[in-house]
Amino acid sequence: MLTYKAPVEKTLFLLKDVLGAYRHANLPGFAEVSPELVEAVLIEFGNFAEEVLLPLNRSGDIEGCTRHDDGSVVLPSGFKEAYRRFAEGGWLGLSGDPSYGGQGLPFFLSGIVGEFGSSANMAFGLIPGLIQGAVTAITLHGSEEQKRLYLPKLLAGEWAATMNLTEPQAGTDLGLIRTRAAPNDDGSFAITGTKIFISGGEHDLTDNIVHLLLARIDGAPDGTKGISLFVVPKFIPDADGNVGERNALECGAIESKMGVHASPTCVMNYDGAKGWLVGERDKGLRAMFTMMNEARIGVGIQALAISEIAGQNAANYARERRQGRAISGVKHPEAEADPIVVHPDVRRSLVSIQGFNIAARAVALSASLAADIAHRSPDESERQAADDRLGLMTPVIKGALTDRNFKNVVAAQQIFGGHGYIAENGMEQLVRDVRIAMIYEGTNGIQALDLVGRKLPRNGGRAIMSFFKEVEDFVKANSDDQSLTPFVLPLKAGLDDLQKATIWFMQNAMAKPDNAGAGATDYMHLFGLVALGHMWALIAKAAHERIDAGDPRAEWLNQDVMIGRAWVERAMPETALRLARVTAGADALMAVPEAGF
Amino acid sequence: MLTYKAPVEKTLFLLKDVLGAYRHANLPGFAEVSPELVEAVLIEFGNFAEEVLLPLNRSGDIEGCTRHDDGSVVLPSGFKEAYRRFAEGGWLGLSGDPSYGGQGLPFFLSGIVGEFGSSANMAFGLIPGLIQGAVTAITLHGSEEQKRLYLPKLLAGEWAATMNLTEPQAGTDLGLIRTRAAPNDDGSFAITGTKIFISGGEHDLTDNIVHLLLARIDGAPDGTKGISLFVVPKFIPDADGNVGERNALECGAIESKMGVHASPTCVMNYDGAKGWLVGERDKGLRAMFTMMNEARIGVGIQALAISEIAGQNAANYARERRQGRAISGVKHPEAEADPIVVHPDVRRSLVSIQGFNIAARAVALSASLAADIAHRSPDESERQAADDRLGLMTPVIKGALTDRNFKNVVAAQQIFGGHGYIAENGMEQLVRDVRIAMIYEGTNGIQALDLVGRKLPRNGGRAIMSFFKEVEDFVKANSDDQSLTPFVLPLKAGLDDLQKATIWFMQNAMAKPDNAGAGATDYMHLFGLVALGHMWALIAKAAHERIDAGDPRAEWLNQDVMIGRAWVERAMPETALRLARVTAGADALMAVPEAGF
Repeated sequence: MLTYKAPVEKTLFLLKDVLGAYRHANLPGFAEVSPELVEAVLIEFGNFAEEVLLPLNRSGDIEGCTRHDDGSVVLPSGFKEAYRRFAEGGWLGLSGDPSYGGQGLPFFLSGIVGEFGSSANMAFGLIPGLIQGAVTAITLHGSEEQKRLYLPKLLAGEWAATMNLTEPQAGTDLGLIRTRAAPNDDGSFAITGTKIFISGGEHDLTDNIVHLLLARIDGAPDGTKGISLFVVPKFIPDADGNVGERNALECGAIESKMGVHASPTCVMNYDGAKGWLVGERDKGLRAMFTMMNEARIGVGIQALAISEIAGQNAANYARERRQGRAISGVKHPEAEADPIVVHPDVRRSLVSIQGFNIAARAVALSASLAADIAHRSPDESERQAADDRLGLMTPVIKGALTDRNFKNVVAAQQIFGGHGYIAENGMEQLVRDVRIAMIYEGTNGIQALDLVGRKLPRNGGRAIMSFFKEVEDFVKANSDDQSLTPFVLPLKAGLDDLQKATIWFMQNAMAKPDNAGAGATDYMHLFGLVALGHMWALIAKAAHERIDAGDPRAEWLNQDVMIGRAWVERAMPETALRLARVTAGADALMAVPEAGF
Repeated sequence: MLTYKAPVEKTLFLLKDVLGAYRHANLPGFAEVSPELVEAVLIEFGNFAEEVLLPLNRSGDIEGCTRHDDGSVVLPSGFKEAYRRFAEGGWLGLSGDPSYGGQGLPFFLSGIVGEFGSSANMAFGLIPGLIQGAVTAITLHGSEEQKRLYLPKLLAGEWAATMNLTEPQAGTDLGLIRTRAAPNDDGSFAITGTKIFISGGEHDLTDNIVHLLLARIDGAPDGTKGISLFVVPKFIPDADGNVGERNALECGAIESKMGVHASPTCVMNYDGAKGWLVGERDKGLRAMFTMMNEARIGVGIQALAISEIAGQNAANYARERRQGRAISGVKHPEAEADPIVVHPDVRRSLVSIQGFNIAARAVALSASLAADIAHRSPDESERQAADDRLGLMTPVIKGALTDRNFKNVVAAQQIFGGHGYIAENGMEQLVRDVRIAMIYEGTNGIQALDLVGRKLPRNGGRAIMSFFKEVEDFVKANSDDQSLTPFVLPLKAGLDDLQKATIWFMQNAMAKPDNAGAGATDYMHLFGLVALGHMWALIAKAAHERIDAGDPRAEWLNQDVMIGRAWVERAMPETALRLARVTAGADALMAVPEAGF
């Protein structure tokens, strides 16, 4: 059975000592946010995750969701009650707009709650994640009437929400969407079509489900320029939010899938269902994209969450499981064998998992903070810089980090040997669950193309130049600090590789875009390594300062820095490999005829 | 639904044109083996795999195995009939000793049958694999009486077999085995204890199941030096092989696990069951290890098999699934979108899968051939050289190749996007199934330690020196052939890295064995890359020769060489990363206190 302890202390250290989150007291919602408040919030939610969500994780996987013949869907035992407590705890409205019932706290707090919750129960966490996505979409694009109608219900968790994008023939390529919207006389639209892979499309947790849906208004242009965003509630509410008539939509089936069994993945059939346009006609895809950063960072955090619980359990197992003796000599002579944590190869795996988790959490928190600044700062240039950074880091967090998280979870399962393959021990479920993070909200290949094709060239490379400068400045400022050398030197080498790869694209991908496509995934991983290496250098510097100041956390800070040092030593040389692959270009790949594979 | 086409032509090319398998006509059993016979065998078994085994793959996963209260276990529908046809086809006795009813054909043919069968249905393939393992154990260590009693039944497939090693407290460390063997008056032993993770421990396919089991004879020394090997039949046969009295053993439970659901993983309880010593008393572990090479190569072949079917389906999907347009311009203007095979990032994945599969098959076949030579050659030095090579390549095939196979299968699933996560499409089952290959028959970490700690230093490094010389000679002999430069140059660089890593171990691991442990996995992967790169160079050379000779297979040979070229370009630079990790040593890893993870 898996155990989990929310990493409250490590998160608090990152927020305050590494990222300086409390410097932003000028932002709306930040003034009240003291380290003490954050600590109290994290402890409270950590307890909820450990005590309420974790016990439902494996039972939810086994029981799964049930669809009845009338199209209704029931979640596994205990989920409804856990969701009720979650909603009543106010966790959905944490960073929501106070005008609509939210608590107005920083977005980064929602990110942390998302991590702790997903560690304990990833499938459970999908519903709140979708509600937050819908809140963002309606906040940014909805009419005032839509905001007043939907936001309070969503922020209170009384209603749930979904995102309806995919159709059988339209996945990555949303320009192929066929779902139609025919104008009704009352200003609404009649939505007709089939959507697939709809997480939480139907369930028994809430009185109503608000479907956000992409469809094509009759007569709209073909392709991506003719797609509009609609809100299509399961039950049509009156102006006061009282649930009324059942809409003409139904869950036609739920998918049997590899993992997240406790989350219903629905085929949704719309048969002239009433929907209302959100934002501008034919601009639905743009509206969808403005909320994508948040959703994609959410996926990166989910994957980190699974890597965290996997790493905790692998470390515990490595300390408990006794097999063989240390090759350097017996370490625990009192027992008939040493715990497997004595073996360097097991430590190599633990370091790769835990060294990543610590830095990845810093990367994700840093992006969450950037989102707060981008959305709330009164200073335009500060907003712009934060938005640049957020846009740049989003595909890295979704793409590079989830790939690495998956490898970590597999490595954690491996530490259990055969016991990792057995369902009872829970590790194999983590592998099956986290696998989806590399796929949904845009496959990781799409993230790489977003990074290389859109985020790099945007505004003349302003975002990437700013990132380079920040890392360069850090390297320069700290290159004389010998205690940081194990962090700064590999970071410098990694940055060099990243800059070389960037220049290579500038020289080779403009005339021949296949070169960008061929190198995109490796570039994304190269970027991810530099971002992680940068965070490790910041963490080590902050930890050294705290240790020198006699901080009571010195013991574990010191241990974390040791893990970081071992991680950096083995992980960062990968940047050279990624650079070599980027500069290999597309020729050999494109030479193979389509029939030749 | 997955499709599968057995790679008969590609295998025949490797055997004849790349590996020169028919040069060994002097070996017993090889004289009758013509290319025509091999082709006929592969076509026949390929059809069996495609038509009989593949249709049971997904249904077997869904239905799984059922244990009844009386301890009996029933396999999924159709498995019994398929097994009957498999046994009647003579597939179990293919390379068995003719004195006991085998056909005496080369072992490499069994390896190919194992690949095709596992591609179509990995769970089904486990039972024949275990029978072959038992045949080897009894052939090498059994008494003449045991051979006469068991081998004909096993080679005919009338009886099945298992390997009983693991106990709850004894996995990797078999020295912790507690199962006891008390001598009976009649020369047999009374076996008492519990074994776990016993594949095929109980089922309804055969009249009898022959359990090979490790136990400690009362009074034997502690640790690995007091373990003996026993044969413990489910039903005790008389001297003529008639099944008699039920033995005191039972399947106590079957495990719920991540994959290979159609293979029952049993908890086996022995309650004074009658067993007979196989080989020498207290030398059971050595007896087990002599059959390990074969079993471990079998696992490598299983994983390759899954990578093969995954790659075939990913390529087909990439040619059929239409999303978006090629970034270099529309490729299929007649359709509303291009097939995703036009995208360089999709090709990158396909190349990483298929480029690996082709070379990995060559590595595995080469090892199977070495096994044939090691067991059958009349020439002692030839036997020794082949045995050296087999021992060296075994951990590489089991460890490095299964790690890479798993990544491939995940990459193939990724090409399907969301459809890869849905059970109906079959890709997620492949990921769940192949995952076990990295764990069983010794986890891949153990393979790495076997390579670095045992296989490298054995006989003064004779095996590794011979491998180095062979690759060096090839590089020297072909460095002027410009058509081979894309293969030979990266191979040379990889060999340099491997030699440096080897020397680093010689200089740094003798005094400090943790350095060997810390670098073992990276060394194993470095070795794997060089072995694969070597095979690609041989394949390219042979393909060029065939193409120049006007071979009718020129079209696909040429395409394969293009895939190989792209694979080598992106895969081989990894050797430098692996070397960097090896030479990082153990210090940073070992500095972390046990409680610090």
